[in-house]
Amino acid sequence: MNIFYAHSGGVTAVINTSAAGVIKTGKDHEQINNIYVGKDGLLGLLNDQLYDVSQIDDDTINRISQQPGSVFGSCRFKLKDLEQDHETYERIIKHLAKHQIEGFIYNGGNDSQDTTQKIAIMAKTLGVNLTCIGIPKTIDNDLMGTDCCPGFASAAKYLATSCMEASLDVKSMAKTSTKVFILEVMGRHTGWLAASCTLAKKTPHDPPHIVLIPEVAFDMNRFITQVNRAVESYGYCTIVASEGLKNEQGDRLCGFDVFDAFGHQQLGGIGHYLAKAITTHTGYKNHVAIADYLQRSAGHLRAQVDVDQAYAAGKQAVLSCVKGQNSTMMSIKAHRDNHQYQWSIAPIDLSVAANHERFIEQDMLDQHGQIDFKKFQHYALPLIQGEVYPDYRDGLASYDYDLATRLPLVNIAT
Amino acid sequence: MNIFYAHSGGVTAVINTSAAGVIKTGKDHEQINNIYVGKDGLLGLLNDQLYDVSQIDDDTINRISQQPGSVFGSCRFKLKDLEQDHETYERIIKHLAKHQIEGFIYNGGNDSQDTTQKIAIMAKTLGVNLTCIGIPKTIDNDLMGTDCCPGFASAAKYLATSCMEASLDVKSMAKTSTKVFILEVMGRHTGWLAASCTLAKKTPHDPPHIVLIPEVAFDMNRFITQVNRAVESYGYCTIVASEGLKNEQGDRLCGFDVFDAFGHQQLGGIGHYLAKAITTHTGYKNHVAIADYLQRSAGHLRAQVDVDQAYAAGKQAVLSCVKGQNSTMMSIKAHRDNHQYQWSIAPIDLSVAANHERFIEQDMLDQHGQIDFKKFQHYALPLIQGEVYPDYRDGLASYDYDLATRLPLVNIAT
Repeated sequence: MNIFYAHSGGVTAVINTSAAGVIKTGKDHEQINNIYVGKDGLLGLLNDQLYDVSQIDDDTINRISQQPGSVFGSCRFKLKDLEQDHETYERIIKHLAKHQIEGFIYNGGNDSQDTTQKIAIMAKTLGVNLTCIGIPKTIDNDLMGTDCCPGFASAAKYLATSCMEASLDVKSMAKTSTKVFILEVMGRHTGWLAASCTLAKKTPHDPPHIVLIPEVAFDMNRFITQVNRAVESYGYCTIVASEGLKNEQGDRLCGFDVFDAFGHQQLGGIGHYLAKAITTHTGYKNHVAIADYLQRSAGHLRAQVDVDQAYAAGKQAVLSCVKGQNSTMMSIKAHRDNHQYQWSIAPIDLSVAANHERFIEQDMLDQHGQIDFKKFQHYALPLIQGEVYPDYRDGLASYDYDLATRLPLVNIAT
Repeated sequence: MNIFYAHSGGVTAVINTSAAGVIKTGKDHEQINNIYVGKDGLLGLLNDQLYDVSQIDDDTINRISQQPGSVFGSCRFKLKDLEQDHETYERIIKHLAKHQIEGFIYNGGNDSQDTTQKIAIMAKTLGVNLTCIGIPKTIDNDLMGTDCCPGFASAAKYLATSCMEASLDVKSMAKTSTKVFILEVMGRHTGWLAASCTLAKKTPHDPPHIVLIPEVAFDMNRFITQVNRAVESYGYCTIVASEGLKNEQGDRLCGFDVFDAFGHQQLGGIGHYLAKAITTHTGYKNHVAIADYLQRSAGHLRAQVDVDQAYAAGKQAVLSCVKGQNSTMMSIKAHRDNHQYQWSIAPIDLSVAANHERFIEQDMLDQHGQIDFKKFQHYALPLIQGEVYPDYRDGLASYDYDLATRLPLVNIAT
């Protein structure tokens, strides 16, 4: 069989590692002939722009594997239902048929699992022979049906490390300079990434002293009290704030207006909102860092467990495809004992993940709405184990901006 | 002789490495008895709060060496002239005498070299037996009289790496999502840190496509033209902007008002100023990252050359102190051949560095005011060679928030 594979939505430091798992497994599998990767995600299938990666060598697969971003490009593309947009589906069917593709593997978040599900429904409805498989991926860790999402742990490891480092910096300077440091992190509507900064906490006194997540409504009085208490107790205060933080009314908090070209308010700005409040209410000198894409693409510090899981999810997707386990997502199943963490990949029905959001569970919070860091560590510490560094050449990570176009045996069909 | 050592001003990822060089060399030197380190920089001497590090073991020195921030604390403290503030100098003299200190080693930027010089002048004027030595340090790389400053290269390596990674991210997504990425970096009034993001450029087409430095007045029309050209040519655009960017009139550009408790406008905000302009003039979706303290404290990715130079500067400071090379700063002298970079530490007169600022030289810029990346690489690529990682324990860098208070044989005199 021939397989189509593509990336969807925001990229991560290990999405290419899943690609490597798909390509290597497909290449070595006797039942797989050609593996096509979509240029810019699903757009590659719509526009018939496919990389043929069936013949690439293991060294190239390894180089793909360690590069952040998507070597092949990704896209934000919301597929409508079959009855609403026959034309788009006809193009998909036409190009699947042209390349005799019988396996469809799509790597993305909850929206993307919905896309995979829609294509599976289309195939069933129209009698197209197609096995549809989803691979989970998001730094936000907000997918249902999987213990964690490939991409989350590496971002978490990077943020926990950066939060420690900046805290050591602020602590050094607090006597005569900055006393409050705010780190604004991603995570959309969930607090998994913000919570990950508590992974380095050994005692309640360690930074971060305040973690603000969208699951808990922001309360200004409580916040200012917490800031004052931290500065009085430790001399400084480290705050981690989720981009999607909301007030009691459910409105997003924003330090300034950021709109895109269509007038939609972009996420971001919570750091400066808090900075302004701290200046007004306490007078403490403060600084804001916005990790933004740096946290999503930090290939220079990836977690071994994350790399392993991303690769395994890609590998299992191909194996599930061959087995005809249609309309499933490769879920990470995990078991935590006191000192042991075991995981495996298993298919679950796509509908479990598609369009749902997984929030931080209530029992990971204490009575003040703060992360119970011991419970969170029990969950997330196993995920960030091990350090994977890229190869360095002449002092810099040997990433390659044009890796896809340089693949020796790749053709973009036109 | 007994030595006093302290940190001053903003910290770096390698300032503790210089401390380790001072401590280890002092501990092993037969002419050095006690080494005292100021708690919170010079404040430690003023308040007689000194760590006695003369007896600490090599393992502890190694742990100090690899930690970002300052283990002993730093301060922003501007010393007045002797005639303006006799009282402060009297406290300094009293505490130097109390601990029989005859060597004064101060690690900091251009303001701090001025402090060292003032103390040297005081000692000479009042007949106090004191050898005063400065160690250069700043991520901004803006000190005169030294080829580079310890701390700069590690920040540069981190920023160049992060800029590559975020560019790979944006490039992946640009077809349907964010097309412009802005990285706001530090550097005060100079563009060394912004320029460091060009270290990964192999061709003029590689990101960053636009680097904005304070040495070149910002021109909105030129900027928008550059953004459009990059997006049209490459599909996306990466911009690096210095926090201290100014317009033709010499006014700092700011995306929103950030004031400290005293009403002073803080540096920062240029990223959002540019984002707003891009949205208004081009409509391209854009994202802003503010590296802030993350770039100053990124101990998880330090440059070997920087670590070596920071240690050597500390070591040579002690040796110069013993030799009585009063009123000098430990300068890094470098020689660049085509494929070779050689460096050594040599004392220069403190007045060369004190209070002066070193800007990016005109011949490192092209006719459009952009960094000539080949010339900049000739200068800076040798500095970022080699990767130094911290020890990891349970998935996290084994930093220690309370290292100073846990030093076994340390006493804070009261």
